[in-house]
Amino acid sequence: MSNTNLLNETHNPALISWVESANVENCDFPIQNLPFASFKRKGSTEDFRAGVAIGDQVIDLKALFALNIFTGDAQLSLEQCCHSQLNAFMSMGKQFWSALRQTLSQALTQGSPFQEKLATCLVAQADIEYALPCQIGDYTDFYTSIHHATSVGIKFRPDNPLLPNYKWVPIGYHGRSSSIEVSGSDFKRPKGQTKAPTATEPSFGPCKRLDYEMEVGIFIGNGNDLGEPINIENAEDHVFGMCLFNDWSARDIQGWEYQPLGPFLSKSFASTVSPWIVTSEALAPYRVQWTRDEADPQPLPYLESQQNRELGSLDLNLQVLIETETMRNAGQDAVQLSQSNFKDSYWTVAQMVAHHTVNGCNLRSGDMFGSGTQSGPNPEEAGSMLELSNAGSEPIKLPNGETRTFLEDGDCVIMKGWCKKDGAARIGFGEVNATILAAD
Amino acid sequence: MSNTNLLNETHNPALISWVESANVENCDFPIQNLPFASFKRKGSTEDFRAGVAIGDQVIDLKALFALNIFTGDAQLSLEQCCHSQLNAFMSMGKQFWSALRQTLSQALTQGSPFQEKLATCLVAQADIEYALPCQIGDYTDFYTSIHHATSVGIKFRPDNPLLPNYKWVPIGYHGRSSSIEVSGSDFKRPKGQTKAPTATEPSFGPCKRLDYEMEVGIFIGNGNDLGEPINIENAEDHVFGMCLFNDWSARDIQGWEYQPLGPFLSKSFASTVSPWIVTSEALAPYRVQWTRDEADPQPLPYLESQQNRELGSLDLNLQVLIETETMRNAGQDAVQLSQSNFKDSYWTVAQMVAHHTVNGCNLRSGDMFGSGTQSGPNPEEAGSMLELSNAGSEPIKLPNGETRTFLEDGDCVIMKGWCKKDGAARIGFGEVNATILAAD
Repeated sequence: MSNTNLLNETHNPALISWVESANVENCDFPIQNLPFASFKRKGSTEDFRAGVAIGDQVIDLKALFALNIFTGDAQLSLEQCCHSQLNAFMSMGKQFWSALRQTLSQALTQGSPFQEKLATCLVAQADIEYALPCQIGDYTDFYTSIHHATSVGIKFRPDNPLLPNYKWVPIGYHGRSSSIEVSGSDFKRPKGQTKAPTATEPSFGPCKRLDYEMEVGIFIGNGNDLGEPINIENAEDHVFGMCLFNDWSARDIQGWEYQPLGPFLSKSFASTVSPWIVTSEALAPYRVQWTRDEADPQPLPYLESQQNRELGSLDLNLQVLIETETMRNAGQDAVQLSQSNFKDSYWTVAQMVAHHTVNGCNLRSGDMFGSGTQSGPNPEEAGSMLELSNAGSEPIKLPNGETRTFLEDGDCVIMKGWCKKDGAARIGFGEVNATILAAD
Repeated sequence: MSNTNLLNETHNPALISWVESANVENCDFPIQNLPFASFKRKGSTEDFRAGVAIGDQVIDLKALFALNIFTGDAQLSLEQCCHSQLNAFMSMGKQFWSALRQTLSQALTQGSPFQEKLATCLVAQADIEYALPCQIGDYTDFYTSIHHATSVGIKFRPDNPLLPNYKWVPIGYHGRSSSIEVSGSDFKRPKGQTKAPTATEPSFGPCKRLDYEMEVGIFIGNGNDLGEPINIENAEDHVFGMCLFNDWSARDIQGWEYQPLGPFLSKSFASTVSPWIVTSEALAPYRVQWTRDEADPQPLPYLESQQNRELGSLDLNLQVLIETETMRNAGQDAVQLSQSNFKDSYWTVAQMVAHHTVNGCNLRSGDMFGSGTQSGPNPEEAGSMLELSNAGSEPIKLPNGETRTFLEDGDCVIMKGWCKKDGAARIGFGEVNATILAAD
């Protein structure tokens, strides 16, 4: 399958919307994007419902459904978008996702006869607040960046950084769903047990090595029944879309607790998603070849497909920025800590889906995968502070003279993501941010 | 606090019910028990709703609510028991759980004026089927048996069986919620990657070392807000009750995948709970002293309380039985593989709750903890086949001449639990069972 087969009129970079803000250069939400969120007007008593971003506006899909101007699968889709969470729509499958996208694309294109009516459904993004886009039944965190796995491995296991299973198994583990919140949800620095290497006993107190992890969140649309694995050939049909994901990590708690059963309290205090789910279909132009070094083991057959080889990776730029309290008080802009790209992932989304279900495990609509921290091959592409500060031994210098080894109270971490290339519209993810509050 | 303070008239062993089957010796569900499940008539199109077991019957709480014969907190509780899952009732808290228990106890006692009306709400357990009792948002698996941790540790890490954190941290990890099913849900043997110690590369195929784990399931009633830890002093107020839990495990998949982030596909193919939740209140007579060897580290302050010392453990007998296909075909009864007791757990339920939330993690109503495999101090008290067969090296001999190192297709594993002592009514948990089907 070639990438052009995955493209349709909704991807046409020449499309222009009657919503003028969508046509501005470097806009995250041009008419070729059309991502989904759950929203309501700020501070209102309205119910949350689904919206689609266009420029600096959001289309209220519940209001659009009530207008009854769409027909067929698009209108059936809208009906499921009236709920406070997107799960019902996400579970409908690709046919319905595509139908709604196509209809919205046409209706938002300059010259559409629907302009006047659709305009009544627009709400300014500046005036809204978000909820989690869907109920996340189970959240699984993968570990797909070999660069991250290697550099973190060195810190936890200097003699054995990359374990023998890494190049065979798309390593993942179960995460905590209850503490996943949407961008803007600040949280208190966690407390817990830690033990310094030289200490004879652990102690209890606020985390001293609080970190972020730059990840991609991957949302399952329609799931599978228990005992019925999803074949890699069909795996992508089950993926509704993606978001930005900050998998906050308490490194000192992690180091003491994680053996033998994995990270637990070092992760479960907070995780943060961006509000907008960018659909798989919107990302089609940015699919790229997935390669595996010939010197490395080639995937076992259940992780191998022609489509995965040809188009399994995604050219998605990921950026981490920090705004310290000092910067905020001085009115200074956030500064970049790193930039990396999801295409450097050792495993693809299709491989994650196929692996996750190969034992018969069922995925449900709204389940989320974290991609694992996306660090690139170069040191400055590291997706965590642990890596950037070399486990705290090399302080990161910020432009205002401050330094960081790990996060301090008042620090706001901001993550952005975008796809951009010649011949295709830029697709933005918006951002995810949250600020560290002092421990009680 | 003494144990007698926790007891009330509902625990009186002299109580006799007008439901005669509840008064039979060794009945799991006497009037002093009153556990909750979600049920409907077998094969019917009825909605699932909550029921309480009494003898060989179940009281349909939706029907009882409709009778409108109870008042106050008990009737308010019944209203929340009309849903297909117990979460709403579980979230109401101890005051409501106790009110309903007390009222049901009185109404089911011999001579109650409610007998005639309540009798119209009884359905024979033989005629019903069960659903999961509640929506399990997040499932956490602990590792509280030091005997299990040590004997399993020897097999995975011969040089380092019990890690240095074990005696300080109530080790736990996130599990998979979607694949938790209720007793009787058979499942296919999982497939996955495994690597023999002598092999140079992993291979793919059906699990060859399929195992069970005898655990206690612990259900959270009312949860906590993110960032607001539950103090150990209040921890037990958040626990609605307990069930039996089989945490099926694919040992060969586990051995290859579990480092560094913990078990994943080796667990997520299936987990099975017993249908009945025995409430914390029903278990009050069986609370016993929790002790920590003086030679061992004493708990950090956040894991320490007088009540936990005095009454933190639970004298709950746990039994594992097997019925092979050959036994079933020959009409032979299941035979015991092991018996252990939850009182041998190194950590208590209150410590699990306090630890889980100390970092600010929020628990939600219906969340479940697995206790971890409950193995006792003696080899025959091992709660998994891995331990009983010494990692497959010493086949277990069954009375009919069959042997087992791990589970074979057609094997049905049955787990039972009960509390029993002089001066208190016996409290049974019913059973959890499921049969291994052949891999596709």
